[in-house]
Amino acid sequence: MLLHLCTWAEVEAYLKNSKGIVMPIGSTEQHGPNGLIGTDAICAEVIGREVGAAAGAMVGPTIAVGMAVHHMEFPGSMTLKPSTLLAVIRDYVASLAEHGFERFFFVNGHGGNVPTIRAAFYEVYAELRALKGANAPDVRCALVNWWEAPGVGALSRELFPGVEGSHATPSEVSVTQYAYPEAIKSAPMTPQVAPSGGFHDARDFRRRYPDGRIGSDPSLARPEHGRRMVEAAVAGISDQYRRFVEEA
Amino acid sequence: MLLHLCTWAEVEAYLKNSKGIVMPIGSTEQHGPNGLIGTDAICAEVIGREVGAAAGAMVGPTIAVGMAVHHMEFPGSMTLKPSTLLAVIRDYVASLAEHGFERFFFVNGHGGNVPTIRAAFYEVYAELRALKGANAPDVRCALVNWWEAPGVGALSRELFPGVEGSHATPSEVSVTQYAYPEAIKSAPMTPQVAPSGGFHDARDFRRRYPDGRIGSDPSLARPEHGRRMVEAAVAGISDQYRRFVEEA
Amino acid sequence: MLLHLCTWAEVEAYLKNSKGIVMPIGSTEQHGPNGLIGTDAICAEVIGREVGAAAGAMVGPTIAVGMAVHHMEFPGSMTLKPSTLLAVIRDYVASLAEHGFERFFFVNGHGGNVPTIRAAFYEVYAELRALKGANAPDVRCALVNWWEAPGVGALSRELFPGVEGSHATPSEVSVTQYAYPEAIKSAPMTPQVAPSGGFHDARDFRRRYPDGRIGSDPSLARPEHGRRMVEAAVAGISDQYRRFVEEA
Amino acid sequence: MLLHLCTWAEVEAYLKNSKGIVMPIGSTEQHGPNGLIGTDAICAEVIGREVGAAAGAMVGPTIAVGMAVHHMEFPGSMTLKPSTLLAVIRDYVASLAEHGFERFFFVNGHGGNVPTIRAAFYEVYAELRALKGANAPDVRCALVNWWEAPGVGALSRELFPGVEGSHATPSEVSVTQYAYPEAIKSAPMTPQVAPSGGFHDARDFRRRYPDGRIGSDPSLARPEHGRRMVEAAVAGISDQYRRFVEEA
Amino acid sequence: MLLHLCTWAEVEAYLKNSKGIVMPIGSTEQHGPNGLIGTDAICAEVIGREVGAAAGAMVGPTIAVGMAVHHMEFPGSMTLKPSTLLAVIRDYVASLAEHGFERFFFVNGHGGNVPTIRAAFYEVYAELRALKGANAPDVRCALVNWWEAPGVGALSRELFPGVEGSHATPSEVSVTQYAYPEAIKSAPMTPQVAPSGGFHDARDFRRRYPDGRIGSDPSLARPEHGRRMVEAAVAGISDQYRRFVEEA
Amino acid sequence: MLLHLCTWAEVEAYLKNSKGIVMPIGSTEQHGPNGLIGTDAICAEVIGREVGAAAGAMVGPTIAVGMAVHHMEFPGSMTLKPSTLLAVIRDYVASLAEHGFERFFFVNGHGGNVPTIRAAFYEVYAELRALKGANAPDVRCALVNWWEAPGVGALSRELFPGVEGSHATPSEVSVTQYAYPEAIKSAPMTPQVAPSGGFHDARDFRRRYPDGRIGSDPSLARPEHGRRMVEAAVAGISDQYRRFVEEA
Repeated sequence: MLLHLCTWAEVEAYLKNSKGIVMPIGSTEQHGPNGLIGTDAICAEVIGREVGAAAGAMVGPTIAVGMAVHHMEFPGSMTLKPSTLLAVIRDYVASLAEHGFERFFFVNGHGGNVPTIRAAFYEVYAELRALKGANAPDVRCALVNWWEAPGVGALSRELFPGVEGSHATPSEVSVTQYAYPEAIKSAPMTPQVAPSGGFHDARDFRRRYPDGRIGSDPSLARPEHGRRMVEAAVAGISDQYRRFVEEA
Repeated sequence: MLLHLCTWAEVEAYLKNSKGIVMPIGSTEQHGPNGLIGTDAICAEVIGREVGAAAGAMVGPTIAVGMAVHHMEFPGSMTLKPSTLLAVIRDYVASLAEHGFERFFFVNGHGGNVPTIRAAFYEVYAELRALKGANAPDVRCALVNWWEAPGVGALSRELFPGVEGSHATPSEVSVTQYAYPEAIKSAPMTPQVAPSGGFHDARDFRRRYPDGRIGSDPSLARPEHGRRMVEAAVAGISDQYRRFVEEA
Repeated sequence: MLLHLCTWAEVEAYLKNSKGIVMPIGSTEQHGPNGLIGTDAICAEVIGREVGAAAGAMVGPTIAVGMAVHHMEFPGSMTLKPSTLLAVIRDYVASLAEHGFERFFFVNGHGGNVPTIRAAFYEVYAELRALKGANAPDVRCALVNWWEAPGVGALSRELFPGVEGSHATPSEVSVTQYAYPEAIKSAPMTPQVAPSGGFHDARDFRRRYPDGRIGSDPSLARPEHGRRMVEAAVAGISDQYRRFVEEA
Repeated sequence: MLLHLCTWAEVEAYLKNSKGIVMPIGSTEQHGPNGLIGTDAICAEVIGREVGAAAGAMVGPTIAVGMAVHHMEFPGSMTLKPSTLLAVIRDYVASLAEHGFERFFFVNGHGGNVPTIRAAFYEVYAELRALKGANAPDVRCALVNWWEAPGVGALSRELFPGVEGSHATPSEVSVTQYAYPEAIKSAPMTPQVAPSGGFHDARDFRRRYPDGRIGSDPSLARPEHGRRMVEAAVAGISDQYRRFVEEA
Repeated sequence: MLLHLCTWAEVEAYLKNSKGIVMPIGSTEQHGPNGLIGTDAICAEVIGREVGAAAGAMVGPTIAVGMAVHHMEFPGSMTLKPSTLLAVIRDYVASLAEHGFERFFFVNGHGGNVPTIRAAFYEVYAELRALKGANAPDVRCALVNWWEAPGVGALSRELFPGVEGSHATPSEVSVTQYAYPEAIKSAPMTPQVAPSGGFHDARDFRRRYPDGRIGSDPSLARPEHGRRMVEAAVAGISDQYRRFVEEA
Repeated sequence: MLLHLCTWAEVEAYLKNSKGIVMPIGSTEQHGPNGLIGTDAICAEVIGREVGAAAGAMVGPTIAVGMAVHHMEFPGSMTLKPSTLLAVIRDYVASLAEHGFERFFFVNGHGGNVPTIRAAFYEVYAELRALKGANAPDVRCALVNWWEAPGVGALSRELFPGVEGSHATPSEVSVTQYAYPEAIKSAPMTPQVAPSGGFHDARDFRRRYPDGRIGSDPSLARPEHGRRMVEAAVAGISDQYRRFVEEA
């Protein structure tokens, strides 16, 4: 069930049976020569929604713009400041908690979001504690990164041995090709496999990785690979979701 | 062009010809017995994207959750606090302005967003002025509400005479039916036409409008009406966009 | 009754009979060659206080500095950032709500304040809801712009046909001349009637409207016209106030 | 010169000769049985404006609501949170500094404001430093409490020996009687002289000082005493202002 | 008792007998040619902890970085913005108040902190009042500056007649020499006694006081003087603490 | 070199040779029956300072209170809200960056801090980018958790096989015993080894781990083990520091 395609009465009915909700969160930022700017939001949304379908869970609206300060030297990249993203997540959870949702399961598409999401969970807990003390609802927030789901790593190693890299990966580009076959892009990769490593701020990122990729060869991306990636991720994450909502 | 389906190189190329971008912004909130919770975000996104197609404009990611404090007594409604939405809009515009976008054209789907959006424009201007003074880019922000576009009102009066109302309207429900025919809902309307009027906070809203509608009979919504609504809105708004980006 | 001229015991007594309060809010910004920088605060204060006298309502302290980012290229203009004004209005209302005031009737003198005031109302509602839930007081906030009061437009068209404009208007300048006859200024108007139109940020405003006026000829302002303006506004707004506090 | 009664051209002319401005700041809070809720704002405004007249200084709009959290158990008292007042002062100074004002001389009417005002000065300095570094204007902020002006203490000891106290004092009530003779209130004082001491939060304040006074007998207030108080304060403070703006 | 050297069970036991806690707060900023950057934090910590020992009070963690915007032209100086320090103090007090601490006794080592600390107390009171209303705990916050403790001034006049000054004083440098004899520094003083006076922002401070001292000759500092300073301060402040926690 | 034990001239001299600084950051929270509330701050400080000594690096003041919302059901625990800690780290880095520090190496003692620290790094980068654009200094921030340093895990497995756990571990308790032998506590452990697992908010934490430990038997802690732990950590982390400051 997709929250945005429900009526309020349908949500009310759902809450009689479950307090769980899947929250896709991604980013809107450069993904190399042939990757879409929306890659991380698309991956989180596609996988999050299929998780919802598989697990019978409500799925909330995708947070499409995340924390991508380090990508800002590439045109089209967008970012919320960490403090803004913290407030957004706090407001999303607080809104839904008013209605009785208590298990928030964030399916994340962007590594750069992880710290702020985790920090936001505690901002939520702190605020609920301050406002309601012992009467606060038993709100619990969890985070899964789709690329870390059981089965996904093995599939990546099978499909893209040694060239998965860590940004603008063939895996994530494949997922977007599967989701939006009409938007498959091709571009030369120079070098074929991008350099690997870390980075600091946005200027440092661009200096080290002039076309935006880190350690990857996304020219190997294919829609059918994306389908398999999604299937693997959904299988693993649906199971994690079920355990999360059933946990005592 | 949809920003999230572009590569960064495509955005870079676009910016050589245009500094304009369409920014859809909606809300995620109850829309009466047969209206979707995502109604306002769907309308803004569908119309915003077709405006982009018609006008050759880049279209940014939809802000799906807006300011809907007054709907919070209905399950599934979500809201950002006005201060949070202000920060979100500021960060969206600031991010894109770094790349050279200068004309931000917000296509809005929710009346409740209007004050905060307009306030945010001045937060943006104030911050750019503080940071860059006389060297600040010539950033301009505009807002159009799709239901106020030329031609839309007349069409509503033709299709839904006297029962358009002001929330959970047959017009907006029709647009969502056109966009998501698989999610058309039916529900009895009691009374057939909802009461009209104003409201204050969330409790007051629910007390006055127990099923969420104001002044409307959305049982008259039809996908084909939605299609006509979208066409009318896109025609009017595309023209407004063109004038906005061409304005001296 | 003016709050600042009451003792606390008088306020306590007032609250036994009424929960309503008039809140004047203006701005401190350029108003063209012969308009005072305090024009909007003066108009809101004069009219708000006479509304209080007419309706037997308590009148709070005037918010004299509002949101005027777009006037900042003219010396003497002051502005709060929208986010600051939001906090100010929230604190004003929250303070008075602690004592039992529940009907906040803002009489506004500046168009640029409207979005932020309206956004602030929902910040107030959101905060009260978060803090007190079902036990929150029934706080209601309303906004009237004095120049939109019944009777004011007709009077303007009678006195200043075609030259009212939208900033530094002969109407508002007349009100300040009535209020402060010792501070009537005269200055040549070049051109006699200022150009009309919209604007974006502060630099854009000054470029389009080099002396600060929009569409107006405030040389026609007269104290006696101001008196009539005030009378018309007070009549209309007092009636709105009464209906607001009596509304179920 | 009062900023709100100037045109922008007059402000522009003033700035050619002086960079100084007097900023009155008060509070809106209980002042005992016969004191006005606006006492502190009235005192700051009356004295600040006469200082401006005496010293040829521009006078800005009065900040009428200050930090009065500790008075909130008495009806009609208003307060900004310290963090809000910090932002207000920062925005006031930042606005005027854009036009070239560089010497901000706050004339304060409320002891409870002192910490927040002083903290705000450093928020201003920090922000200017961050934004402009070595190019920041030489902005300087000073604070004077009118009741500490040379000559004021001696006059109080002469007029109200041993019963001045520290809140709802006969001195400040006298100043308001001088300023608003039409709003002179009388009320029995029980006991005649209020108890003295400190306090913590609002509940503690009311418990210790049930009618709002601390250590004072404001029944001795007289308009003519107020006139003398104002004269003494203006003489001392005008001199302080002159030295402030002339300081290297 | 030092909070950081207790177990939680020891804190629980302490709270059965006392609700008081000593909170040292200092600064990390230049202290002239021979003064340590940590001078103010060291003084507050040493004296605060000995006060705790003398009075049997729990002592919380030292706030080592305070408000030192005006020292930022000297390498190594650190500062929190006033608004940040406000939030820090609010969070410290709010955390400990959750466990039942109700008497917060700040021992301060830096004059520049005073306004922000005092403002923060009211931010705390305002927040507790908003969150808990009549059920709020009876939280009380007090501030003492160690150099103003009874006996300290007399000792300074005895040891450093006429050369105590107001920044980088021989008294505070002596206290750090007593606390950290391994870190005694020597440096020429030119002139021997620094100029006296006030200052505005950081550039103004450095211009007036090029080596960082104000009015002092800290070459007279000696560890044994520091010991006497600490003894005098602890005697006076312990007594103040006892009265604070016993106050009705 | 310890920043707080330097003079400003010594810092100025240091900056001629290095732009690096070690920043210890810990937490003040329950650490089980025999662990100190300051455990995480002590570990970070002890190790951070020895890293500084080993690597010839400046060491800044320890952030002693971190993000510990989940420990708030245990007396004595303190926490900053994530948003406050974000601001603190931002201000620390911004202050030191003004003087020319560019390599900030955070040595962390508390897992709960990690997300907020990492989020703060991007808040810093975003702010520097906004303020200074292409002229921003090349500020780089890194984070190491001392318990993840090379060699530390192996030593823990040797000393505390199978009972290290993840909170109130024998390793960290040993470090504090080494640092503060006068504050070694003993307490029965029931059960001897605490249960393992995850947790959500503070109430959930206390319900699952009633004495505060997770998976550990800290009764095995010994000061001499702590010494070895510190040595192992310092060796590994000093090397990481050197590579960090030498990185191109």
